[in-house]
Amino acid sequence: MPAKLKTALLGASGYSGLELARLLERHPRLEKPALLRREGSDGAADLAQVFPELSGNGGYPLRALSWPELKRQGVELLFLATPHEASRALVPQAIAQGLRVIDLSGAWRLKEEQHRAIYSFHDEDTTIAAELAEKAVYGLPELAGDRIASAQLVANPGCYATSVILALLPLLKAGLVEREHGIISDSKSGVSGAGKAPTSRTHFVSVADNFSAYAVFNHRHLGEMVEQLGLNDTELTFTPHLLPIPRGILSTIYVRLKRPMQPREVELCLRSFYTGKHWVRVFATPQLPQLQFSLHTNYCDLGFCLAEDGQRLVLVSCVDNLLKGAAGQAVQNMNLMYGWHEREGLQ
Amino acid sequence: MPAKLKTALLGASGYSGLELARLLERHPRLEKPALLRREGSDGAADLAQVFPELSGNGGYPLRALSWPELKRQGVELLFLATPHEASRALVPQAIAQGLRVIDLSGAWRLKEEQHRAIYSFHDEDTTIAAELAEKAVYGLPELAGDRIASAQLVANPGCYATSVILALLPLLKAGLVEREHGIISDSKSGVSGAGKAPTSRTHFVSVADNFSAYAVFNHRHLGEMVEQLGLNDTELTFTPHLLPIPRGILSTIYVRLKRPMQPREVELCLRSFYTGKHWVRVFATPQLPQLQFSLHTNYCDLGFCLAEDGQRLVLVSCVDNLLKGAAGQAVQNMNLMYGWHEREGLQ
Amino acid sequence: MPAKLKTALLGASGYSGLELARLLERHPRLEKPALLRREGSDGAADLAQVFPELSGNGGYPLRALSWPELKRQGVELLFLATPHEASRALVPQAIAQGLRVIDLSGAWRLKEEQHRAIYSFHDEDTTIAAELAEKAVYGLPELAGDRIASAQLVANPGCYATSVILALLPLLKAGLVEREHGIISDSKSGVSGAGKAPTSRTHFVSVADNFSAYAVFNHRHLGEMVEQLGLNDTELTFTPHLLPIPRGILSTIYVRLKRPMQPREVELCLRSFYTGKHWVRVFATPQLPQLQFSLHTNYCDLGFCLAEDGQRLVLVSCVDNLLKGAAGQAVQNMNLMYGWHEREGLQ
Amino acid sequence: MPAKLKTALLGASGYSGLELARLLERHPRLEKPALLRREGSDGAADLAQVFPELSGNGGYPLRALSWPELKRQGVELLFLATPHEASRALVPQAIAQGLRVIDLSGAWRLKEEQHRAIYSFHDEDTTIAAELAEKAVYGLPELAGDRIASAQLVANPGCYATSVILALLPLLKAGLVEREHGIISDSKSGVSGAGKAPTSRTHFVSVADNFSAYAVFNHRHLGEMVEQLGLNDTELTFTPHLLPIPRGILSTIYVRLKRPMQPREVELCLRSFYTGKHWVRVFATPQLPQLQFSLHTNYCDLGFCLAEDGQRLVLVSCVDNLLKGAAGQAVQNMNLMYGWHEREGLQ
Repeated sequence: MPAKLKTALLGASGYSGLELARLLERHPRLEKPALLRREGSDGAADLAQVFPELSGNGGYPLRALSWPELKRQGVELLFLATPHEASRALVPQAIAQGLRVIDLSGAWRLKEEQHRAIYSFHDEDTTIAAELAEKAVYGLPELAGDRIASAQLVANPGCYATSVILALLPLLKAGLVEREHGIISDSKSGVSGAGKAPTSRTHFVSVADNFSAYAVFNHRHLGEMVEQLGLNDTELTFTPHLLPIPRGILSTIYVRLKRPMQPREVELCLRSFYTGKHWVRVFATPQLPQLQFSLHTNYCDLGFCLAEDGQRLVLVSCVDNLLKGAAGQAVQNMNLMYGWHEREGLQ
Repeated sequence: MPAKLKTALLGASGYSGLELARLLERHPRLEKPALLRREGSDGAADLAQVFPELSGNGGYPLRALSWPELKRQGVELLFLATPHEASRALVPQAIAQGLRVIDLSGAWRLKEEQHRAIYSFHDEDTTIAAELAEKAVYGLPELAGDRIASAQLVANPGCYATSVILALLPLLKAGLVEREHGIISDSKSGVSGAGKAPTSRTHFVSVADNFSAYAVFNHRHLGEMVEQLGLNDTELTFTPHLLPIPRGILSTIYVRLKRPMQPREVELCLRSFYTGKHWVRVFATPQLPQLQFSLHTNYCDLGFCLAEDGQRLVLVSCVDNLLKGAAGQAVQNMNLMYGWHEREGLQ
Repeated sequence: MPAKLKTALLGASGYSGLELARLLERHPRLEKPALLRREGSDGAADLAQVFPELSGNGGYPLRALSWPELKRQGVELLFLATPHEASRALVPQAIAQGLRVIDLSGAWRLKEEQHRAIYSFHDEDTTIAAELAEKAVYGLPELAGDRIASAQLVANPGCYATSVILALLPLLKAGLVEREHGIISDSKSGVSGAGKAPTSRTHFVSVADNFSAYAVFNHRHLGEMVEQLGLNDTELTFTPHLLPIPRGILSTIYVRLKRPMQPREVELCLRSFYTGKHWVRVFATPQLPQLQFSLHTNYCDLGFCLAEDGQRLVLVSCVDNLLKGAAGQAVQNMNLMYGWHEREGLQ
Repeated sequence: MPAKLKTALLGASGYSGLELARLLERHPRLEKPALLRREGSDGAADLAQVFPELSGNGGYPLRALSWPELKRQGVELLFLATPHEASRALVPQAIAQGLRVIDLSGAWRLKEEQHRAIYSFHDEDTTIAAELAEKAVYGLPELAGDRIASAQLVANPGCYATSVILALLPLLKAGLVEREHGIISDSKSGVSGAGKAPTSRTHFVSVADNFSAYAVFNHRHLGEMVEQLGLNDTELTFTPHLLPIPRGILSTIYVRLKRPMQPREVELCLRSFYTGKHWVRVFATPQLPQLQFSLHTNYCDLGFCLAEDGQRLVLVSCVDNLLKGAAGQAVQNMNLMYGWHEREGLQ
């Protein structure tokens, strides 16, 4: 039996980070991961102080990040579930230490300057930052499995972006979409996507019995989507909404096909694209996936309806924003990086 | 002081009917409404048996429907909050009795045969049914106030239709929309819109922590929308979704403008159309209405975002499906029919 | 027609304050209330900036509190929906100006020093504070209607206290309860009771799909309950819990009766005590009120179940924490203070 | 490596059954379980037709129950997640076939006739039924681990009963509770506990934004609790409530101690009782478990608060009603019956 991989995780006290810590703990190929504390964090000595639901399994000690200490322990792979500013500062250091990195933030996802602008990065060394941004692989396994396998730095995709890209990829790659007509993604996310910091927007009374659109035309994930799908900026309209549920994303996507098609052609296009891809499920029309189906799983569920005219296509795409949209996808990426089956540790 | 109007309501044991009973009870121009029981109903003698929250105000007795009895009491106006089959059978009788009728069902909303087909009506007298369907006024006060004022039969609009039509009317009337491009309404409704009958679909466990699309391309309200907006059937794509909340509708509507516009032009178009219309509120961009804002009110709230290209327009429209989408609108229609201010009894 | 009363409200930007502002706006005996801004508040010039759902009714301007200005306007009655520290500082000033005051905070509810200790008041003039605390009338209309009528300072009860006291009063006054056995109130409240400030405890993800007890044995409202019910501190065990809903309180109360009784005796005791009290509804056993029944009303709903042994009694009491538990009760108190019917402005 | 155990499950189309099917699928000691269809069920050929979220793992075929077929397959252990009437009829047959059985219903939990009366069983052969009822072991592993190990028929406890018994056992066994004073369990459950059949009570609109008590003094689980705890019927008052969440139970339990105690004594009593019991977690006072902490786990979480008088004790107990309250506990029981670690298949 091969030696188990040694990993570390910085940022386990956020929602995605907690989910990732749990997955790494149970992953059969890994040693118990080192959980690292960010400088300036609230200084909890154990993750169970932050999340009391973790009590009673021998503890989840949090240790201050120290590069020499990681080296001493033989850590090879570092997960960052940190805000993008922190990831932007830490990744160059980690890479310099020879670590492989999977970063869950938006820090390294974008290739084009005009999209990156929305993040307002303040890099210490802009040359190195530019090199790393170039080198980073966008970690969507169903799109870039080969490049992920050999990557040193994987930029784990955004949750909305995952749901939208996976729905659109097969049809766009097959050249079936009338791109100039414009594509619309009306996406809805649970509240954990807004992060753990308490704000008036995430107050229970503001969210319960409510529903709202936000960041129309200027959400950060839009850049990822157009870059990965090869679209012009005006070809994709993306409207995120806040659902009164803790987790899950459902995107309803509107596409005009170039020519009238039959439902079975569309289904075939989706199915054949995802043949052999364990974590994407294509539903047979007219059955549509519901948000609940993919909760607490790493699946991206896809379904569709085609109008009688054969050209107006509605796609429905669901992911658990904390799993396929974050932590689960990070584990799937790790599996690719180390040559394991993409299901390992995710069942 | 003028004599108070005598009204009757059949169907108070449903969600919209209950809401309407409450509004009629409090309306300053009305006598206490006669609450009628449908034949074959569960036979409750008082509405407080169905809704215990009504206890303690002297009772809400339910009486069997009897045309002679209504005449004897001097009832002039009948509200029907009944399933469409029941309304289709009862309205000809009520009209023959000389009553004015506001029907909350879908029985009399549609003018065109191809849209009506979805309801599969079985009319006893097809000639009379056709005459009444012709005569019925679609009861959207902001669209057809004058015709409603003199109507004998008002077909109260569907909840989804109200939210979509009110958002699109100003721009379509002004000729600003590139209709051939196609309009999309991605609409989301609370569960009371699905009615009070318990089904596996309305089970709490099926709805909570969930979200789903349904009836894509074939929801009944689509016919109303295209008829009232003067669109061809393929020019409007309508996707309803089920929100895990009891009430409220938010529609996110995607429109291509014929020419690049400024946000203030769009705002002006909406505002000027609704000048003097109390129950539509236009929000100043970039502020968008949230579903919660219109809950428990008769408002339809409208807001929008315009892309930098000036042509991709996202409209957001919110109504309480049981008020502006049903019972509140019925009262607003009554106000018009009797020459009262449209706010009466709705504050 | 008598001149309308002039009132002012400080603190409309909280949940109870907003509810109170809405009630005062619609109250037929009042002029439009003056809405006052607290010093150091976020400085919104209009309440609709804080609550966009208030848009479109001509505005709710917020003005800085100024005693001379209130006098100039002829304001007679001041409502305070402020934190208890603020109320503790402002009430002496308001009383000195000759105003009558209804204070929704806990500042003036307690008569006994040992209960007051939990609030840690820092009074500028302890003599005046003690005098006012003595003079203040605990504003539970069903308990102290006469004294409220002539009060200058009304301390509006806490939401939990309202639900518990109203359930227990009739039986305790009738001497039916074995007090030494101990009484238990297991109470559950919606999240608006925790206030509008965003905290990790009120984050949607912390509350949704969750339920928890808190402040066991040391919640502030316990003092009010034992004082008003004439109990010793150890005779009442009070456990508040946080429900994953925006509003409403349900208390399940456990009492040992001194002697075996019949259900109809218990019902008679409750009913006779509340005869003529419009805002308390007694349900006939075995029907129990549900939290939902009293939402958006000023009712306190009471029901009960009696064990076969005739001595173990379970009472269920429901209020809307923002209405009968706060703003509605404040209006009810005003009605008493000015000799109006207790229903005025609350239907 | 030893041969894997062959199991069958009847009733996978209910909430507990689905959960159990998932656990059995993943259990490392088991072959893929045979999923059985009840006669007269809707006849789905695959469980994924009932629960589309199961799509994409090779299918979950449902087969009609046939004793010879089970024997042919070498099935040793049968799980029943059927209504109690069905279990009452099937268990004698299964036992006659030599199968071991874990029954999740209430059919075999009660030893005393007066408690069983509430179920109104209609046994075909009353002698055999009485023998089996006597022989059945109440399947609470922390209480009866040894007897479960050798049992042929395990009656899996009710969800409420699990939460209440585990909280009270240590203190009652230690003789610390003043039983005659009476014990109160105010328990709250999510909606999946009410089963999957759609009723007006489980309609989303009836549950959301609501909370209510039900079945006061006569819930079926009360019998189990008093039998297993060795209490008289009047010594335990049990009030179940319906929470607006899909799953989870929190019981708040009120106990009078015989003598004033220190918190650490209480904690020690709980901790020492559960030493070596993996699936009960005792929280250190004053920290209380929240319902959310045990969701999606097999833990029963216990915490407490002790009044200053040292005698009034409030216990808080949480379980996931579908796991520790049903399917998880069934797996834990199987682990005991086959000598495996109680954690196997439950992590």
